[in-house]
Amino acid sequence: MSNAITISEVGPRDGLQSIDQIMPLAAKKAWIAAEAAAGVSEIEVGSFVPPSLLPQMADTAEVVAFAKTIPDLDVAVLVPNFKGAERAIAAGADKISIPFSMSETHSLNNLRKTHEQMIEEIKAVADLVARQPEASRPYFEVGLSTAFGCTMEGPIATEQIVRLAEQSIAAGAQELCLSDTTGYANPAQVRDLVKRVKSAVGDDKLNSLHLHNTRGLGLANVVAGLEVGITTFDASLCGLGGCPFAPGASGNIVTEDLVFMLSAMGVETGIDLDALLQTRTILAEALPGEPLYGFTADAGVPLGFESTQNLKAHG
Amino acid sequence: MSNAITISEVGPRDGLQSIDQIMPLAAKKAWIAAEAAAGVSEIEVGSFVPPSLLPQMADTAEVVAFAKTIPDLDVAVLVPNFKGAERAIAAGADKISIPFSMSETHSLNNLRKTHEQMIEEIKAVADLVARQPEASRPYFEVGLSTAFGCTMEGPIATEQIVRLAEQSIAAGAQELCLSDTTGYANPAQVRDLVKRVKSAVGDDKLNSLHLHNTRGLGLANVVAGLEVGITTFDASLCGLGGCPFAPGASGNIVTEDLVFMLSAMGVETGIDLDALLQTRTILAEALPGEPLYGFTADAGVPLGFESTQNLKAHG
Repeated sequence: MSNAITISEVGPRDGLQSIDQIMPLAAKKAWIAAEAAAGVSEIEVGSFVPPSLLPQMADTAEVVAFAKTIPDLDVAVLVPNFKGAERAIAAGADKISIPFSMSETHSLNNLRKTHEQMIEEIKAVADLVARQPEASRPYFEVGLSTAFGCTMEGPIATEQIVRLAEQSIAAGAQELCLSDTTGYANPAQVRDLVKRVKSAVGDDKLNSLHLHNTRGLGLANVVAGLEVGITTFDASLCGLGGCPFAPGASGNIVTEDLVFMLSAMGVETGIDLDALLQTRTILAEALPGEPLYGFTADAGVPLGFESTQNLKAHG
Repeated sequence: MSNAITISEVGPRDGLQSIDQIMPLAAKKAWIAAEAAAGVSEIEVGSFVPPSLLPQMADTAEVVAFAKTIPDLDVAVLVPNFKGAERAIAAGADKISIPFSMSETHSLNNLRKTHEQMIEEIKAVADLVARQPEASRPYFEVGLSTAFGCTMEGPIATEQIVRLAEQSIAAGAQELCLSDTTGYANPAQVRDLVKRVKSAVGDDKLNSLHLHNTRGLGLANVVAGLEVGITTFDASLCGLGGCPFAPGASGNIVTEDLVFMLSAMGVETGIDLDALLQTRTILAEALPGEPLYGFTADAGVPLGFESTQNLKAHG
């Protein structure tokens, strides 16, 4: 288990794209700046999808430009395809991530592409990335989504995931992330699948998990991930993006709760929990009426807990 | 890690004593019968405390008498002292548990007893238990409460917990349970403390954890507990007893979510999750307006999940 963990804040992308309200650009900037100041070293600041589909993400290029002015912040974006990757590169993103659904049914429904067509897309993006000048070349990750099960197909065969993971690396992905898009993952499955994929593509090609807390297992799955060498976990401030029909149930794991857990365990995150908790007010003000989650924010930290106890320089 | 886990339902005691409403005796009986029918093999059905302090528990003797008519159900009760133990034995409980706060400040506040006085009380209860005819002799457990930290003292020194654990066994406790009364525990601490106490008192003398979900770490702490040989976990149906000021934040871990996690992990619980989820209606009807928690109840089980997949005869 690594003793220094990167938390990748995905709220400005995964959170904001899941709610109806559109956060003003100024609030996005304030949010990103505040989290970076609290010690968050990687933020997925938006996605390059057609604004007609996701108006919440229409200003992503401006958000990237702002985020790039923050020293030592890794500025990540999500892109659905080659066209999105072109826009991400033009905007100057440090890291681009393309979701690749392990469920072909989901892939066809979501991006209208077969697995074979997705591998071609990944190859095209990888080639595009490789053609960039080294100084501005982004890091290219493929997110293996619905890896822990699909709401349309149910469980996905491990052999299929391993094969698609290998093909993604062969197509030019620098790194993979396993995504529990549906909140189906359990700790035993996390351990098994991470080990299987790592052993297939190489230990250093899978370091990240994107977990949801749909069935309350998000942090339990983090513990399992830590045990098998995962060093980056996605999370969302206030668990933004939870489904209003099932309060607290469908969103990303809550960044604040994750930082509390890791800090309490003595794992370095580089993040000051008090400062992080204070950034919640930005969301509360910019997204009136939006449900904001978080056990630690509700309960407070334990008596004797030091907010900065694992704040040592990190990475 | 054991492949068969006992879930001890504590809602009829820990849940009901934490809320203002008093559940009618008929509803308590229906609840206990329904959970037992779903496969729950141990239920803490109430506590023997003065009815003037906890009117919710005034009918515990009748509840025990009813629960004892259910085949193969272990009927547990909590007692605060020798007098409570006498009542528990008279009622015919299968298991009695006395809470022993590792924080002396909390012990003095809660039971008005020093650690030394508590050890004397444990000795007196153990002697009382030993004097019972073998056929009706209850199992005697000591619950080491505030073991993971106290809201008044903060962290409790591990050496102190180990010493009090040893003294409890020496005084005649048959088994110990570590209780995260305050919801302060984290997975690293769970692993460490369980290992330390097990190695001090003997591996077979510590098999149980009573965890809370105050900071969202309840199931993560279960995963840690599984790894160090814990085989019994307390939980509360609907997370009953959560604090109304911090929704979902202060109660026990939710039995349904725990059963979902363990079943998904391939760990036998003997419990049919569908049948367990259906027992929620008893609480909804008997406790109108009371907040009922549970991620799995909100989100449903994953496509392809078999409610009875780990239902094999157990224990």
